[in-house]
Formats: sequence, C-alpha cells, structure tokens
Amino acid sequence: MGSMKVSWFAILSLHLAIVLASDPDPLQDFCVPHPRSAGFIRSTVHGMITVPPCKNSSEATADDFVFSGMKVAGNFSDTGLAVVSVSPTNLPGLNTLGMSFVRADIEVGGINPPHFHPRATEIAYVVEGKVYSGFVDSSNKVFDRVLEKGEVMVFPRGLVHFFMNVGDKPATLFGSFNSQNPGLQKIPSAVFGSGIDEKLLQKAFGLTPKQIGTMRRKFDPKGAR
Amino acid sequence: MGSMKVSWFAILSLHLAIVLASDPDPLQDFCVPHPRSAGFIRSTVHGMITVPPCKNSSEATADDFVFSGMKVAGNFSDTGLAVVSVSPTNLPGLNTLGMSFVRADIEVGGINPPHFHPRATEIAYVVEGKVYSGFVDSSNKVFDRVLEKGEVMVFPRGLVHFFMNVGDKPATLFGSFNSQNPGLQKIPSAVFGSGIDEKLLQKAFGLTPKQIGTMRRKFDPKGAR
Amino acid sequence: MGSMKVSWFAILSLHLAIVLASDPDPLQDFCVPHPRSAGFIRSTVHGMITVPPCKNSSEATADDFVFSGMKVAGNFSDTGLAVVSVSPTNLPGLNTLGMSFVRADIEVGGINPPHFHPRATEIAYVVEGKVYSGFVDSSNKVFDRVLEKGEVMVFPRGLVHFFMNVGDKPATLFGSFNSQNPGLQKIPSAVFGSGIDEKLLQKAFGLTPKQIGTMRRKFDPKGAR
Amino acid sequence: MGSMKVSWFAILSLHLAIVLASDPDPLQDFCVPHPRSAGFIRSTVHGMITVPPCKNSSEATADDFVFSGMKVAGNFSDTGLAVVSVSPTNLPGLNTLGMSFVRADIEVGGINPPHFHPRATEIAYVVEGKVYSGFVDSSNKVFDRVLEKGEVMVFPRGLVHFFMNVGDKPATLFGSFNSQNPGLQKIPSAVFGSGIDEKLLQKAFGLTPKQIGTMRRKFDPKGAR
Amino acid sequence: MGSMKVSWFAILSLHLAIVLASDPDPLQDFCVPHPRSAGFIRSTVHGMITVPPCKNSSEATADDFVFSGMKVAGNFSDTGLAVVSVSPTNLPGLNTLGMSFVRADIEVGGINPPHFHPRATEIAYVVEGKVYSGFVDSSNKVFDRVLEKGEVMVFPRGLVHFFMNVGDKPATLFGSFNSQNPGLQKIPSAVFGSGIDEKLLQKAFGLTPKQIGTMRRKFDPKGAR
Amino acid sequence: MGSMKVSWFAILSLHLAIVLASDPDPLQDFCVPHPRSAGFIRSTVHGMITVPPCKNSSEATADDFVFSGMKVAGNFSDTGLAVVSVSPTNLPGLNTLGMSFVRADIEVGGINPPHFHPRATEIAYVVEGKVYSGFVDSSNKVFDRVLEKGEVMVFPRGLVHFFMNVGDKPATLFGSFNSQNPGLQKIPSAVFGSGIDEKLLQKAFGLTPKQIGTMRRKFDPKGAR
Repeated sequence: MGSMKVSWFAILSLHLAIVLASDPDPLQDFCVPHPRSAGFIRSTVHGMITVPPCKNSSEATADDFVFSGMKVAGNFSDTGLAVVSVSPTNLPGLNTLGMSFVRADIEVGGINPPHFHPRATEIAYVVEGKVYSGFVDSSNKVFDRVLEKGEVMVFPRGLVHFFMNVGDKPATLFGSFNSQNPGLQKIPSAVFGSGIDEKLLQKAFGLTPKQIGTMRRKFDPKGAR
Repeated sequence: MGSMKVSWFAILSLHLAIVLASDPDPLQDFCVPHPRSAGFIRSTVHGMITVPPCKNSSEATADDFVFSGMKVAGNFSDTGLAVVSVSPTNLPGLNTLGMSFVRADIEVGGINPPHFHPRATEIAYVVEGKVYSGFVDSSNKVFDRVLEKGEVMVFPRGLVHFFMNVGDKPATLFGSFNSQNPGLQKIPSAVFGSGIDEKLLQKAFGLTPKQIGTMRRKFDPKGAR
Repeated sequence: MGSMKVSWFAILSLHLAIVLASDPDPLQDFCVPHPRSAGFIRSTVHGMITVPPCKNSSEATADDFVFSGMKVAGNFSDTGLAVVSVSPTNLPGLNTLGMSFVRADIEVGGINPPHFHPRATEIAYVVEGKVYSGFVDSSNKVFDRVLEKGEVMVFPRGLVHFFMNVGDKPATLFGSFNSQNPGLQKIPSAVFGSGIDEKLLQKAFGLTPKQIGTMRRKFDPKGAR
Repeated sequence: MGSMKVSWFAILSLHLAIVLASDPDPLQDFCVPHPRSAGFIRSTVHGMITVPPCKNSSEATADDFVFSGMKVAGNFSDTGLAVVSVSPTNLPGLNTLGMSFVRADIEVGGINPPHFHPRATEIAYVVEGKVYSGFVDSSNKVFDRVLEKGEVMVFPRGLVHFFMNVGDKPATLFGSFNSQNPGLQKIPSAVFGSGIDEKLLQKAFGLTPKQIGTMRRKFDPKGAR
Repeated sequence: MGSMKVSWFAILSLHLAIVLASDPDPLQDFCVPHPRSAGFIRSTVHGMITVPPCKNSSEATADDFVFSGMKVAGNFSDTGLAVVSVSPTNLPGLNTLGMSFVRADIEVGGINPPHFHPRATEIAYVVEGKVYSGFVDSSNKVFDRVLEKGEVMVFPRGLVHFFMNVGDKPATLFGSFNSQNPGLQKIPSAVFGSGIDEKLLQKAFGLTPKQIGTMRRKFDPKGAR
Repeated sequence: MGSMKVSWFAILSLHLAIVLASDPDPLQDFCVPHPRSAGFIRSTVHGMITVPPCKNSSEATADDFVFSGMKVAGNFSDTGLAVVSVSPTNLPGLNTLGMSFVRADIEVGGINPPHFHPRATEIAYVVEGKVYSGFVDSSNKVFDRVLEKGEVMVFPRGLVHFFMNVGDKPATLFGSFNSQNPGLQKIPSAVFGSGIDEKLLQKAFGLTPKQIGTMRRKFDPKGAR
C-alpha cells in the first residue's frame, strides 16, 4: 500500500526525521563531540541550532575516553541509593560506541526500586557488599538471589529488576549497558508519579482512591503538597 | 582485554548460543516454519529436538500470510479486556519479518492496565469507540489523551502505556508492533504478582505489609488463597 | 585491502556521510522534531541549513503522538485509490521509532497497482470491504487471495504486491510498516514512466515501440502530451 | 496493548520462529556450514531434519573462502545474459558475513531486464565492455548512463535497475551485494509471469486482455503453451 | 544484477546459511540453552547434531544469570596476565543478550599485549591497581594513559589496545563487551604465530629472516621446537 | 541500575551523541550530500558548522552514483602497493548505502602488509595477476592461498589479512566492503608506529630495545629522523 506524495516540505521534514540514530555499529573509529560546537549550541544567539562534528583524531585525547569521576559514591536518595551515571554526556568518547555504565552505592537496607531500561541489557558486578537482586520475565516469574562481592548478574533488556542491600555494610555495584542511552523507567514514579488518570490506577492496582492519592503525593514531585 | 581459550565444549556451546536471532532484516523472502517439522518436535520420542526449516516457496500458500481469527473479540478478562495476539505462533508467515499485531476489545469502563513491550514500538488504531490512552516517558511525564474512532496513537518502544474505555459502548483497537515477539510486562502482576521480596516492595512503594499482602494475593496466581 | 588517506576534506565529508541514519533501535524515548527549527529551515535566508534537535520532554505533547487526519478517505486517483500516508512528516512523534502507517480506500473495481516498499514489511488490516490481494516472491510465485472485513495479510519486505476491490462497496484498509520511511516503487510508473531507454524496455517486455510509446505517455507525467 | 498467553505450543513455535536470522554483525569469526551435516539433511531417513553446526576452525580451509568458478561466463539466457551467482550455497565461507557477489556477462545488444534486490545495495564494476545502466528512485526518476571499462556504479537497496550492452563486444560485470542473500525480482516475470489476476494487470498497465495474454505466455513458464 | 536459480540444494544450503545469527535485539526475554540438548550434542552417537531450544521460563533459574567464578584471579600466563572470560559458554543466561565480560589480573610489570576484539567495544573498570592502558586509531595515533583504581576507559570496537601494570601491586580489571562473543586477535601470535608466509612478514615489518624465525618459534605453538 | 538526571545540558549533549550513525538499513532511497552545504562547511567563516541535507531527487544525477577514477592504478607505496579507496568522500552516492570499494594494484613482489578493517567484511576479486593472500582467525590459524585471475576471496569482518604479488607481472584487485567506512589498521604502523610504550612492545614481541627502536623509526612518520 502506499502512494506517498513527496513535497518539498516532506523532504525537509524527512531530514528532521533522520537526525536521530541508533546504537548499532559505529561508522567511524569514534566520534568525540567537538566542544566548540557544543559551546555554539549553548549560546545560540540567532535561535539557530547547529549540529557539531566530532573532533578529528588529532584533537581527541586519551582523556576523552577515561572517566575519573566515580572513585567515590554519588549523592544518596531517600531510599538509600546513590548513582553516578556515565554516558556521552559526561564521557564524550562513549559517543556512537553503543555502551554506557554506572556506579551504584546502596546503604544498609537501602533499595534501588523496581525499574527497567527500555534500550539495554545490563551487567552488574558487585564491587563490595551483599545485595538481594533480581528481575521479572514476561511470564511474571522472578529470578532473584543474594549476590556477593565478586559476583555478576545479567538483566535482560527491558525487564523489570531491582536491588536491596541485605548486608551489614554499604554495597557498591558497577553496571554496564549495551546502549549509550539505555533509558530508565522507575516503576513507582512512572506509574504513580506521572499523572496517569486516578481511576485507571485504582482499577489496575485494586487500590482505593485514598491509597492512590497517598502514592501520587509521594511519587509525583508536582503532586507533593 | 581477552585471552579466551576456545575448547571443544566452547565451540559446541557457542552453537547453543547462536540459535536465537533477532528482528532485523530478513535473510529470505519469508520463512514459513515447516509444519511437519513442528509435528516432529512435538512427538520428540527420543528426547531429541530438531530445528525445522522453512517451507520452500512451492509448499507455502497465501493462507500462511492471512489471519482470519480476529473478526470478533477474544475472551474478556476481569478488567474488561479481550486481546487476540497474532505472532508467528498463530500466523506462521510473520516469521522473520519483524512485525506482529493484536486486536484488543475493551468493555465500557474496562482497562488495559499500565504495561510495556520490551522489544517493540506499537501503533494503535481505534476501530471503534472512545479510549483514554497514553504513555509515560523517562522523565515520568505522561502523554495521555482520549482517542476517538479513526485516530491512531504511537507508543515508543519500551515505555509504560495504558488504555481505558471512557465511551458508552465497547471499544476495539488494532495494534501493530515492529517485532515478531514484542514481549509484555504488565506492571501490576510483574511487580506485585511475581514474588519480589515483600520488604523491597514496601520500601519501594511506601505501602504497608498488609497492603502489599493484599496486592500479592490479587496479582499472584500462586499467591491467591 | 585498504590504505585510506584521511584528509581534512575527507573528515568533513565523512560528516556529510553520517547524517542519514537508519531504522533500528531508537537512542532516546522519542524525538519529536523541534518546530522552530523546522521553521528556520524553511526560511533559510542565508542559504544555510541547520539540523534541528528534538523537542525535550516538557515541550512535547500527547498530540505529537496522535494522528487524527485519517477519519475519512483521502483523494481518489484515476485507478480508484485514495491513500493517506502517515510518517514523521505529518506525525512528528513517529520520528526514530521505526514505524509508519497508511489508510487506503479503494472504490468498487478500483486497484492499487503492483508496487513494493524497498524498506519495510507491511501488515494490512481490512477495515471494510472485500479485497483481492497478494504478493509475488523471488521464484515468481503469486500468493493471492480475497480478503474480507477483519482479515489481515502480511506482505514481506521488498516484494511486489497489489490490491483490487472485488466487493460491491468501497473498501478501506489500514496498513502499518516497520520503517518510518518504507519507500514506494509503483511498477507501472517506475518502469514505463521514468525514462528508461525504450529499446531496453522493448527487449525486456517483448512489446513493440508503439506499445511502449503508449505506456510511456500514460505513465510519465512529462511524457504526457 | 498485549496480554499474550504463552502456551507450550507457543514456546515450540517460537523456536520455529527464530531459526531464520539476519544480515547484521556476525557472532563468530565465520561459520562454514559442516558438510557432513548437509549430507545428513539430504538423506534424512527418519524424516528428521537437523541443523548443522559450522565447521570449527581446524576443519575449515582456505578453499572454503575462495571461489574459482567464475573465471568464465555462465550460460546465456535468451536476452543475452549469463549470470554466475555466488552465495553461501556455492561459497560456504560467505555464510553469516553479510556479502555475496555475481559475475554477469551480456552479449552485444543483450539486456539484464529491470529488476531489484529486496535485501541489498549492489556495486557493479565493469570488467569489460560498454554498458547502458541505471536505476529508478521512489519519485520515478531514472539515473542512467553508459558505463565503460573500469567504471563502477552503485544501485541503492531495493530500487529497480537494469543493464544493456551498448558496445560492440561482449560485456562483463562483477557485482557485489551487502547481503548474503539479496533476493531478486525481475519485473517482467514477477509481474506478468507469476499469475497475478489478469483484470488487475489490465487496469494497472492499460493493456488489453490480448496483450496481457501474450505477455503471460511469454513470461510464465507454466503459461507457455 | 542477479538471476539466481534456486534449487532444492540451494534451499537446504540456505538453511545452513541461516543458523548463525547476530548480536542485535533479542527476540525473547532470554534464551538459556537447554542443558539436556547440550548433553545430546556431546554424545552424538549417530553423527547427528541437533540444535537445542532454550529452557522455558519455568525451567530457568536465577543461577542461569549469575556468575560466581571470578571472585579470584584465573591462571597467569608468562606475560603476567590472568583472564577469566565469561560468555554464554560459562554463563548461559548471557545467550542472545548482546553482552559478555571478563576479569583480568595483571602481575606487577605484566602486560596484556596489543590485541583487538573484532566484534565489540570494551569498557574496562580498574578494580585495583595502576595500569598503563591505551588504544590506537585508524590514523595510527595512540590514546594512552595510566589508569588508577576506580577509573574507567572505553576501547572502541575493533581497535588495537593494550594494558601494562605499572603499579607496585597486582592489578585487577573488570571488562565488559557489547557482544556475547567479541572475538580476539592478539597481534603477536596472530601475526607471527599463525603461519603467514615468512617473506611477506619480512617485507611487512622490515625484519630479517632470522628475527622472523625467532618470533615464529616464540609465538607459534607448533613452530616451537 | 540507573537514576539518570536529564538536564538541559544533557539534552544538548545527547544531540551531540546522536549525530554519528551506523551502517544498517538506509532511511531513504539514497542521500547524496548537498554540495552547497559542503561548501558552506569548508568556508565556515563564523566558526559555525552546519550539517547539510541530501540533494533531493531532482538535484541528484547519475554521476553521483558512478565512479570513473579507478581506470588506472593509484600511486605506489614503498611496499609496491597502490590503492584507490572509494567511499562517500569521493563517490557521494554511496552515502548511507552501507558499501564502499577499492582498487588495489601490487607490483611484482610487492605486498599489502597484515591489516584489518574494524567495520567490514571484504570481498576481493582478482582482476589481473597471481596473489598470495589470506587471513588469520581468532584461534591464530592462517587461511592462505595463491589466488589467480578471476578468483574471489572473502575476508571476514575484523580479521587480520594480507596480500603479496607472487606472479611475474603487476596484479590488480577489486575489493568491496559492506560498510561505507570500513576503517583500517595496518599492523606494522598501528603497533610500531603509533607511540605505544616501548617497554610494553618489548615484552609483547620479545624484541630488544634496539630492534623496537629500529621499527619505530621505520613505521612512525614522526619517529623517522
């Protein structure tokens, strides 16, 4: 079926349509975004926005490919979780290479709530501590276990997974992804903090309007009063 | 880094590792799985399992590419939802072509609870009715609207989305996916019905042990007593 | 083999080479092209052309993901076909998500002539009517059948297919593709209306110069006098 | 949308669904299909069909990666075309590597009629002779030219293209594809020799029943009487 | 160009051609190879080889996704390197998910010689120690640095890279790849230990026959006398 | 694991991250980079860099898809090798189509030293001459042979390979790649001419400091004095 008329507008729009790319094979050795270009984008005096090229080989340096900012833990959330996420945003050399990574620290008893990454498989290596961890598959079966220092668990792409520090000292994990931008949906805030119609949530979870209200206030930054 | 030793076992295992494939470009015009082969697999007298080839062109027929089983709605669940899912399982011609589809009927006031497909974008076409529908992105913003007959909404890959019939007659949708096996995680049953440690759920959602218990009984088929 | 010298020009050119991307996994939740950017492109006062970024999450709305323009049929061609094609051009939210769709209406006795989409598999759902439909595979075997309301047929990527309304009332189909820009080659106009050397066409189809001339006048908009 | 029930049958069928793979990155250095396995498939005494593994590294030889069978032209068709096609079928080492190739010889005045490859871009190198050649894009514009010895033309994936020897001696081309199985649809035989309903063809091409009948007899091996 | 004749042999061979797949998106939540099937392969009494399906969800366990065998270093080579490589061979749950990983320990002064992985980008996290590390790009520029504990370096796909422990205690790295089988070519043994014609090596490296002979004895296990 | 905060800077940076794309399926029939845009890039008066769109169909010509510059050999290096490499840089029509090609001429006794292409499989067709040729796999086994006129050899992606003219007249090869930018690492210069720490090289190859010094002077253009 078809019969697409291609107007001049369509051709322009098509260009708009093709700026965003994907995680497969890189087309070059690497592409470290050019900092001057980034700077230009930020000033954008004339309302114009340009797309910067990569640094060429002679401009790039080893530092573009090394991340030194996760020797210590990040800031802890109120669930006892501290994450340092590394993507092309803070390590330009990752750009176009199809990988990114995180350091996660969890306080004793702290959790990383059920969440998933829409665009990546994750491998988590336990640097320190004892962590209850697992994922759920499409048949709603949980694959969970307590991981110890030096163990590694793999979380298949797009499946809900979670962590809880069940040891008696802080835990540290190193996670890597096979996408430079894996994405993240935290179930509690995505479902109860995003503004989905309350009636639908009541029916979906079998919770009372009051219970839903409590959760919305808890997870929706704008709902919090 | 590397230095992988390759043993005979490794080579065999590698074969095990490569049976599963992916959704990208097909390698043939089509590949309708051979029914005789499927039959053989089912009998599997000697404990052997073989992988069947596709029908060749002269054996395949137009019927392998036509689905006639969704002229009427499927069976309704207790949330008022009836889904007929079509994948290579019930339409062999879809095999290797990177698409699948569903018919979904929703009773007045019924819902399709928050869920996501780990491996596909979905396009939903409203054949009949009035449906509140939306999805949530990685920043926990909801994109929701009431859709009317003849309207189409796109749900980006891997993002939580949902439907509720807000009209005064049954609604019918036709959805298509860009994967032959998009996968499915329904949030209520994946999170509360899968057996994730209760303590973690309490901390993640701010619910009491009793509330969690109620939800587990509701969503876990095995937890139901 | 190799020995590629990489000059400054080559590096620039390489950038030219990498603007166009592909249909695989998106790198973000979505990328709704920024309208201001599109506007800028259209005025293009200084002969410059910039590539716009996507809207960020707070600027995008549900309407970017909903298409309301195909509640009724499009304009009919002289073969009795009316197609409304939806791609990122008219539904920006489709951008980078690897899908697009069409509504096709066919008058009684009307046809959608043999054509193919170079970059997508198509799934066609018969919303209304009775349609003779089919495709041809690489061995020149046709897979054809009459489809009725509620039936769905799959057309493998890149294979010639066609439709003819064989019922006694207008037919409507909803088709979806696993590419945001599937492309289209209509055989009659691509072969006889594009300006391929007449001698080659005569030899290829066994037609006389006069017959070829008639067809060129019929299918080539510029050849029509 | 979703709610897919996964039965045992579904799981088996899913396996059927995943045998066919695609042209992207290989998962191993190479995979030369094991000849013993192929042999086993051919005898298939018990009606069983097994999928053979690749040769391991020590069994494979340089000859698995070298093709020696196209030093001379193949057999000429009645349009003056002789093609030797090389794919994993006759050069096992190509398997999984995403490329294949052909040698095409065209007699003086001979043609390779309008055709396309659904799954590959082609690069054609003129080894000998003078060849009128071109392709048609989605806007029905032809890009055609006479190529001379030592020139190379690229034909974008899935677009109709053609060749005619316009020199005064035989022409030879070497073509390579970026798929191990590019597929082929020759327009004359796919459209007029495949059994598409005559009425549809009459309407599509504006030809009389008699003209269509002549073409069907010419291009359909079964229609020839 | 084309004209491929498809014989029965070709169809069988095509099946041979499609067993091997690639690293892109998985087609299922996961595919843990079935151990019984693996066992069957190993006995292979009748010379038959079957391809096993994946475990279904109820048969798979959390242990299929957890690797516990790299809490300590592996065996050290004579260059002071010990690598534990983890792929679907020893962690079945990795199958089809597009990732694998290693633990590498390097003695004081030890090295991981120049090598590359044909099918993956690598991210290396320094768990312990001080490691000189780097890679070379297509313009023969080295990007090298001393990495310290807690730092991470990315090595673009297919580029030569290397490590040397320049600290005063053993070093440990955790590396992850975006392929389940990244492959490995160690330059010294691939070039001097593989049996490439000596004359070619002399010309390529400007070494004398005697020097080449010494290196071949050093790196070719079969050349060692 | 996750918890990525998305700032405005992140969003901009993400755009930087997505300019570079990959070799999979094109999103359009073709994308010939617009020359005016290229021109604009080169003058770049205001320090701005814009990304040009493709020519639209009416602006592109057959010449954008034909390469005429390799009817004769290129310039010979001191190893007796002359390569003409063709990519979107010198044949714009190749852009986004996933292929590129080379002509290589080798003098009698000349070599193309061990090298590999990180991003492509190569097919080499011997147009003239007698060439010793081969590649090495991950198990360090060489697959080598003497190729004669009219023979074709395939070199799997990312594996080290090499050529030496062993005939008594100049040899010519036509090579094609399944990437528009296959990349190139020549082992001698990548390893000995790139500036890798000498100590590491001594340990890796078992060469003396003096031998390493000689090689560095030979292969490093900057080391040459």
